[in-house]
Amino acid sequence: MITSPSSQRRSERSRRATLEAALELCTEKGYGRVTVEAIAARAGVSKKTIYRWWPSKGAVLLEAFTDGFIGATPFVDTGDIASDLRTHINSAVRVASTPPYGPAYAGILSELHHDGALAEAVQEQLVGPRFAAAEERLRKAQRQGWIPAGANLPLAVEMLYGPVYYRHILCKPPHDEATVAALVDHVLRALGAVAGGGREPDIS
Amino acid sequence: MITSPSSQRRSERSRRATLEAALELCTEKGYGRVTVEAIAARAGVSKKTIYRWWPSKGAVLLEAFTDGFIGATPFVDTGDIASDLRTHINSAVRVASTPPYGPAYAGILSELHHDGALAEAVQEQLVGPRFAAAEERLRKAQRQGWIPAGANLPLAVEMLYGPVYYRHILCKPPHDEATVAALVDHVLRALGAVAGGGREPDIS
Repeated sequence: MITSPSSQRRSERSRRATLEAALELCTEKGYGRVTVEAIAARAGVSKKTIYRWWPSKGAVLLEAFTDGFIGATPFVDTGDIASDLRTHINSAVRVASTPPYGPAYAGILSELHHDGALAEAVQEQLVGPRFAAAEERLRKAQRQGWIPAGANLPLAVEMLYGPVYYRHILCKPPHDEATVAALVDHVLRALGAVAGGGREPDIS
Repeated sequence: MITSPSSQRRSERSRRATLEAALELCTEKGYGRVTVEAIAARAGVSKKTIYRWWPSKGAVLLEAFTDGFIGATPFVDTGDIASDLRTHINSAVRVASTPPYGPAYAGILSELHHDGALAEAVQEQLVGPRFAAAEERLRKAQRQGWIPAGANLPLAVEMLYGPVYYRHILCKPPHDEATVAALVDHVLRALGAVAGGGREPDIS
């Protein structure tokens, strides 16, 4: 099918309107009370249009959350792995603990154990790519000699994200910046990483 | 009120029957389809009796889960902190990933963000006491000289439990014993703990 530029623009406008409507409704009413019908009405699109693109309200909110989350939590490379991980985790904590994204993600997570398709989508669209990006940032630091060869990088990613999920899911107060800094230091120490502070990396 | 021993026995029998019925129904139908009415019918008690003791089905299942979880994941002290943490985390992973407790806990967690009373009960009855017990086991190892004074023990507990929650909530395959062993080693190394293996603890 050949799509004209103007119909692509219309589609993108409808997509954006749908994602924004879903986030707004989630903030106003709580995840449990959001319906595809209400999203369609607020976005000015038909229910049929929504169901052509997404299988459920959870899938709509997942795309909205993923867009916002990835935009807000880039993996920067300033050459200082500890500082870059702090930046990333602090942003993730902020997104996960404030509306509209925090409550939206809590709602998505609440559905995973009885919606296998949504659980797969979360893995494929959000968690898998983010996990890979975090591991890649650590691998870069490893290539630069800051982290020993053979270090267990996937475990390190779980040790970084795990505590953030732990507090989010249990509705505990989010980590402050000092605790995030301590977490990053502990994970890097667990890997046997070279401490920063102007020292040369171990590239022997 | 003075309660006679026989009425106490009857109460305890009803309590047990209610908890067992709730777990059975959760396994058979999934958390979302369990109702207080069905729990009462299966347990042979009245709905009024259930509501006298628990405010919601989530609260019934929390008590059932807590009873089972605490029984299955004791904090042993064999004198080897790494081995004892492995024992504890392996049991926690097993309970969280198998019926009836795993799905029951997933259901409870799915309600926390819209049921503040249940979130508080989870903190007070389950997470708070378990967190304190884990921290106390680490503190004992610290007093014995295995872990340096000044180590951040609460952070260590989050680093141990966080990855377990991360996989549970995201429906990822549970940690195998080798990964749990690596996790425990990494957390102890992050604390600057003395490696085990017959060496003397550092009590200087």
